[in-house]
Amino acid sequence: MTVDAQILTAMRRAGAGSVSGADLAQQLGMSRAAVWARIEELRKLGYEITANPHQGYRLLSTPDALHADDLLARLPDNQIVGRDIRVFEETNSTNDVAEKLARDGVKEGVVVFAEAQKKGRGRLGRQWLSPARKGLWFSVLLRPDLRPQAATQLTVVAATALARAIRRQTNLTPEIKWPNDILLRGKKVAGILTELSAELDHVKYLIIGIGVDVNLTSADLPAELRKTATSLRIESGQPVSRPELAAAVLRELDADYARIRNGQFEALADEWEEQCTTIGRTVTIRIGDRAQTGVAESLDSEGALLLRTQHGRLERIIGGDVTVEK
Amino acid sequence: MTVDAQILTAMRRAGAGSVSGADLAQQLGMSRAAVWARIEELRKLGYEITANPHQGYRLLSTPDALHADDLLARLPDNQIVGRDIRVFEETNSTNDVAEKLARDGVKEGVVVFAEAQKKGRGRLGRQWLSPARKGLWFSVLLRPDLRPQAATQLTVVAATALARAIRRQTNLTPEIKWPNDILLRGKKVAGILTELSAELDHVKYLIIGIGVDVNLTSADLPAELRKTATSLRIESGQPVSRPELAAAVLRELDADYARIRNGQFEALADEWEEQCTTIGRTVTIRIGDRAQTGVAESLDSEGALLLRTQHGRLERIIGGDVTVEK
Repeated sequence: MTVDAQILTAMRRAGAGSVSGADLAQQLGMSRAAVWARIEELRKLGYEITANPHQGYRLLSTPDALHADDLLARLPDNQIVGRDIRVFEETNSTNDVAEKLARDGVKEGVVVFAEAQKKGRGRLGRQWLSPARKGLWFSVLLRPDLRPQAATQLTVVAATALARAIRRQTNLTPEIKWPNDILLRGKKVAGILTELSAELDHVKYLIIGIGVDVNLTSADLPAELRKTATSLRIESGQPVSRPELAAAVLRELDADYARIRNGQFEALADEWEEQCTTIGRTVTIRIGDRAQTGVAESLDSEGALLLRTQHGRLERIIGGDVTVEK
Repeated sequence: MTVDAQILTAMRRAGAGSVSGADLAQQLGMSRAAVWARIEELRKLGYEITANPHQGYRLLSTPDALHADDLLARLPDNQIVGRDIRVFEETNSTNDVAEKLARDGVKEGVVVFAEAQKKGRGRLGRQWLSPARKGLWFSVLLRPDLRPQAATQLTVVAATALARAIRRQTNLTPEIKWPNDILLRGKKVAGILTELSAELDHVKYLIIGIGVDVNLTSADLPAELRKTATSLRIESGQPVSRPELAAAVLRELDADYARIRNGQFEALADEWEEQCTTIGRTVTIRIGDRAQTGVAESLDSEGALLLRTQHGRLERIIGGDVTVEK
């Protein structure tokens, strides 16, 4: 962890209390003057920190900006996801940056955030609106030991973790729409784009791209999206802290990724099904030119959707565009 | 097609006859002196061309080197595979070059050859010996409209096309070992490495890497490989023209890729099964830590191997290391 991340961690641990400059200096192996210089830098970034000569430093507030040090400081216990965090002011697509890191051999768990994406994308190359500082646009690189067809498990993990984090941070009740959307009152508030590089029987790496509409207002949404899209701010009536939400999502993702590595996918699938508004409904699923209608019964052990067709057959569905018929 | 490729095509069409400089000049829209200059360049590359003032130019022989123009000239009728050919003296891995082209948006069908690979690789990152000018080491970029789990179809296409081309060029009888090897008398002579980039329900691009041991001698093979590997030269007792074989493989690949685009995968699968020494045998398939033993019954419609286990169940197998038990 960087020095700034350690200072932020120490102040957060102190909570309403303070942490003394002497303690910080000793812990970090640097002079009290050097600690003071770092505090000044953090203040310039928008961190409100009081300095009391007798009690020490106390963190009053954090800016609503994404800083790698700050995010790392919020995740001291993460095992894999979020051990390495990189924040960009602007990228074309965080999935593309994560893919480049993957090819360069960077370890799994690295998370790439961008304050804005110029070419944010959803499934099948569709555009994903990603205005600056209004949402969370990020990608997680994983190297799971999975066959390509089990990669759907990771979309399930991401959806479950994301829904849980949103519920805890906002008290809203997210619904999961298979395979990759999070809805609030029927409108899309977040999406997941899983991309992978594989040999036929072996995933080389997998990138989970996540977009969350956090603080967009109705005015930020183009007219054609207002009927189908929303944001946490619109639904809760108040702004939501993006760094807090980002940290919450990464904590849940790390925990759930540990669960599937330990063979506990079933438990996650159960949690997923409880929140999923697709299960039990009659749906039409379009993949390219093909369309299939049936009742969405459950997830199978690899994360695919089991669809009972009108002819009574059970079909295994990996992905597609879902329309709920009734 | 480039000027050199057009000149080579015209001379090949003339066969034992000649093609006049005047005809070539008219066809190419350039002066006879300019045609003569190109002929001189081709001679420098090792093409044996006679020039008779009355009859014109005649191609006597071609060097055993890979030239993009020469390969293009041999494939005037290819629709997709081999419309664009790039030859490198040396690369780390032709699959990596093809992947870079894929990300740069190059059209499907481009073929990347290298005279030598420094880091040629087989499945699961295993090393693939690729000495200079002794074999064919190349990769084909495709953008098929397939779900990731149907990508095995392309390995079947590649194996079938490769076996057919080897049979026609050498009169040897190749055997296919599922999923990705071509054998001669039980020893490996060629391998296929299929890699793909995908969303969960949609292949973005797919790269078929092919390595053929053409003119390696026993001395070129490390001692530990001599029991399990061979070359066309070792088996046929004579050198094999690499450009002719390369063109033959690309012609077959192009034809078979057209067949699967037209929904004729079944016919290819039948041809594949006839040559496959895995079908009908008791095999053990290892994927990571797991091992499954059973009788390899057939291919399914997506190119997976259907394995009848000892317990009588039919398992769908996508890939793995196959050992034939009896």
